[in-house]
Amino acid sequence: MDETLKDSKKLISDIQTQYTRLSKGQKLIAQYILNNYDKVAFMTACKLGETVGVSESTVVRFANALGYSGYPKLQAALQELIKNKLTTVQRVEMANDYSDENTILNKILKGDIDNIRETLEEIDGEAFQEAISRLLKARKIYILGMRTSFVVAQYLGFYLGIILDNVHTVRMDMGDAFEQIVRIGEDDVVIAFSFPRYSKKSFQLVKYAKEKGAHVISITDSLFAPIASESDNTLIVKSNMASFVDSLVPAMSVANALAVAVGMKEKEDIKEHFDDLEQMWDKYGMFE
Amino acid sequence: MDETLKDSKKLISDIQTQYTRLSKGQKLIAQYILNNYDKVAFMTACKLGETVGVSESTVVRFANALGYSGYPKLQAALQELIKNKLTTVQRVEMANDYSDENTILNKILKGDIDNIRETLEEIDGEAFQEAISRLLKARKIYILGMRTSFVVAQYLGFYLGIILDNVHTVRMDMGDAFEQIVRIGEDDVVIAFSFPRYSKKSFQLVKYAKEKGAHVISITDSLFAPIASESDNTLIVKSNMASFVDSLVPAMSVANALAVAVGMKEKEDIKEHFDDLEQMWDKYGMFE
Amino acid sequence: MDETLKDSKKLISDIQTQYTRLSKGQKLIAQYILNNYDKVAFMTACKLGETVGVSESTVVRFANALGYSGYPKLQAALQELIKNKLTTVQRVEMANDYSDENTILNKILKGDIDNIRETLEEIDGEAFQEAISRLLKARKIYILGMRTSFVVAQYLGFYLGIILDNVHTVRMDMGDAFEQIVRIGEDDVVIAFSFPRYSKKSFQLVKYAKEKGAHVISITDSLFAPIASESDNTLIVKSNMASFVDSLVPAMSVANALAVAVGMKEKEDIKEHFDDLEQMWDKYGMFE
Amino acid sequence: MDETLKDSKKLISDIQTQYTRLSKGQKLIAQYILNNYDKVAFMTACKLGETVGVSESTVVRFANALGYSGYPKLQAALQELIKNKLTTVQRVEMANDYSDENTILNKILKGDIDNIRETLEEIDGEAFQEAISRLLKARKIYILGMRTSFVVAQYLGFYLGIILDNVHTVRMDMGDAFEQIVRIGEDDVVIAFSFPRYSKKSFQLVKYAKEKGAHVISITDSLFAPIASESDNTLIVKSNMASFVDSLVPAMSVANALAVAVGMKEKEDIKEHFDDLEQMWDKYGMFE
Repeated sequence: MDETLKDSKKLISDIQTQYTRLSKGQKLIAQYILNNYDKVAFMTACKLGETVGVSESTVVRFANALGYSGYPKLQAALQELIKNKLTTVQRVEMANDYSDENTILNKILKGDIDNIRETLEEIDGEAFQEAISRLLKARKIYILGMRTSFVVAQYLGFYLGIILDNVHTVRMDMGDAFEQIVRIGEDDVVIAFSFPRYSKKSFQLVKYAKEKGAHVISITDSLFAPIASESDNTLIVKSNMASFVDSLVPAMSVANALAVAVGMKEKEDIKEHFDDLEQMWDKYGMFE
Repeated sequence: MDETLKDSKKLISDIQTQYTRLSKGQKLIAQYILNNYDKVAFMTACKLGETVGVSESTVVRFANALGYSGYPKLQAALQELIKNKLTTVQRVEMANDYSDENTILNKILKGDIDNIRETLEEIDGEAFQEAISRLLKARKIYILGMRTSFVVAQYLGFYLGIILDNVHTVRMDMGDAFEQIVRIGEDDVVIAFSFPRYSKKSFQLVKYAKEKGAHVISITDSLFAPIASESDNTLIVKSNMASFVDSLVPAMSVANALAVAVGMKEKEDIKEHFDDLEQMWDKYGMFE
Repeated sequence: MDETLKDSKKLISDIQTQYTRLSKGQKLIAQYILNNYDKVAFMTACKLGETVGVSESTVVRFANALGYSGYPKLQAALQELIKNKLTTVQRVEMANDYSDENTILNKILKGDIDNIRETLEEIDGEAFQEAISRLLKARKIYILGMRTSFVVAQYLGFYLGIILDNVHTVRMDMGDAFEQIVRIGEDDVVIAFSFPRYSKKSFQLVKYAKEKGAHVISITDSLFAPIASESDNTLIVKSNMASFVDSLVPAMSVANALAVAVGMKEKEDIKEHFDDLEQMWDKYGMFE
Repeated sequence: MDETLKDSKKLISDIQTQYTRLSKGQKLIAQYILNNYDKVAFMTACKLGETVGVSESTVVRFANALGYSGYPKLQAALQELIKNKLTTVQRVEMANDYSDENTILNKILKGDIDNIRETLEEIDGEAFQEAISRLLKARKIYILGMRTSFVVAQYLGFYLGIILDNVHTVRMDMGDAFEQIVRIGEDDVVIAFSFPRYSKKSFQLVKYAKEKGAHVISITDSLFAPIASESDNTLIVKSNMASFVDSLVPAMSVANALAVAVGMKEKEDIKEHFDDLEQMWDKYGMFE
């Protein structure tokens, strides 16, 4: 787990437990942050000091007292904390001004490498294993995601759909999805992708599925994500991107792993149906 | 660039240039491979020796003579070489039998990290830069991809579509796409995603666009990909996956970079429209 | 205009104006209906009499006093009145038990003939004319519909899209549509299809478009439909079906008329682009 | 069956059987038509006379001799005959120049009324009955259509999908559909919509389904339509439109009848699930 995230999660409790040991000026900072963390997340050390009425170096020492190597690390933790609440406009304002296109290319691809690496470190192997086992036993598998999460749902739905005969990707193209899951029950499995800013619709669908007794596998960025509370297996995936959009790259990599793990168990079945498919593709000149 | 890939690319020419220096038995192997490389890619060293009429150790020395540390490396290079022609059934047969789900999870995610890393090493920075510049000047931007490439096209189309007002994701949902690009012309830009097994439809659409004078940016896995020959800017992206499906993960990471790079140039415009969007989202309770 | 509908529209006012002329027992019925019309719509004459405390024949005479040939006609008018509020379950209960499949086939197709005929009688010719003229001048045309209305929107979007270069069918497939219309302005035109049970999302999108100054053409079943109040041109279309679903057939017929009327004005342009299309279709063997 | 269509079907054989009774000038016309019917379909009586070297009145008498009330009726029959082969450009040229928008509105809606009326006259009631019975017994129902037929497929898929749990609308949005039907078998049913110009893809999919033993219900405009030869039940539907596009209106009306007929058999099941749906819709404010 990377430093930023770990700190973010325990930042508030750390401030509270450390409170008595802080200097008078540091206590002022602590109180201000607890009440205004969403503002502080976008203040410089200088501005924060000014607002609270302490020196900039007091602010830096406060960050050190909480275990951060500097104020920027503390600020990063705050930003992580409020991420769900950030509007896109705030995120555009936050986005670094990169010097040129190739710097962007580098930063984004390296960021995605880090995202996958952290996902690999944090993801719950047992949850993954149980997810696979449930998918193989499901009566029907529903895959859902809204906005950009939909493309990953569609990608996984495509691959699982060629391996299994009981996969339904939930589609909003006719404006709603409730009627697609109304028959869900105890033998069914839902795979839900949901990332900040968490869509209400995803939560509503997952909640209904859970109420009907379905097994819910969620692929999301945090145990605090709304759908996580309704999930049987939660696969935590990083989606940080140093820009105004989130990255679905690590979610897609986990989708790859799900498809391959299910596929490995269904090898013989795949081979049989693909022989038919290859013949059709060949007959009608599908590929180059 | 990893060893397998590098070797794959020059394997055939290596065999030809090394030919005179080979032993008599090795020459038999060389000739057989040049004529039957697609079969050899799935033969053991033993089977290859048997087929050609030489010993297994001759096969191993032949691999060494070409600079491979062993026969498996040579075979990997051959498999890479013929990748485009592999059917899904052959790929299922090739897929390693992983011991358990968590090994798969590890391999797939690490494979995707490697894919992005190699993409970063090989991608043409100037092509990326020109792509961004063309996108910003385009009359209309068409984004296309077939099969799993469609989800990445849709992902990029979604992000570019909230930044720019002239983005059209080409959709096959009504069974064809020609009528969607029939008006394409010299001031337009096409972004095409195409990966093995290259869909004919993508090539046909790109070819038409090129004939009409449009600027074509292709995101594909090789300069030998069919659409690459019709492209003005080719962004090479790795898609290897040690399994029966390809990974679109690195293509999606490059889509992230394209969206962010275009977005950075349109910051003010984004902010203006997102203020409206946020108000609507807020009014109608879109997010948690 | 058919009797049921005409009566439905003025039923409440008729009850009020006739009130003083009614017998004592009839007044009891009138008061009960004004307060409980949604319940009465599903009561037999006998049950209504019982509930109000009058005889069944008083109920029948009440219907006659309001100008209905019998109680079933009055009840039909009430049902029409509350149609928007009917749940699907109520509608399934209402659906006639047809004796066999061919009776259903006959009733449904004849019902659709009646729907189109009534549409033809009621549709506002001037509104249609202005709609065409606005479509031909629009900067961008947005077409929208939710649930089954989406398929008609998609149908019209397909045809208008091959005639004009500025048509955008609003799609919910990624779970939202606000970002697709965020740039809408005064030079743009929205064509919105909306039928009972009116989707809130359609209304929200049309309302935003209107606020931004766009010209709104609505295709709906009543001037009392939510989107009608936000529309510049309202094309009234029948959608009655003697069953648990509504018919989009007359809406599709009006979509045909819109596409042909626009197409007639753009004949030369269509011919030019279709020559290209035909060549591609021919080259790649699209049709039998 | 309307005069135009009936005549169209037997026009060629009529010419052949009447041949010996024709005058010398009429024989020249007959021969020319048999060899060039696709050209004659777009010639005036005057132009045809000129081309063949006879007077215009000879052309008119030739039409009368074949039993047509005038040359326009003969020409209409020829046009009907070659309809499948007409390109869109030819159809734009054929399209009448209507004097104004309201004439178009009238003609199109009246044309659709005629289309449904003729459909009602010609449709095979027994085929409809068997179709319903097969749908109720199917393991899985696949619904397919390409281009504008897709919207009717989607419409029927939506309604059947809320009645039954085993409905799959075949979608081309990821560029292909073979993998969606690869598992089809003897217990499955396909409903295929196909209208001129008949898409090859629809035929390929239906052919595969038939080979695998599935029961095929086709909704098309003629027994000579490509998919009709692979169908167990063929429901003939009119799609004539006096313009450059075909009308899917009567196909949609038949879709209504299919949905209602299946729904009537599943009333109890619908009521149960809709109670759940209504609760969700109510809870989350879906409708006005």
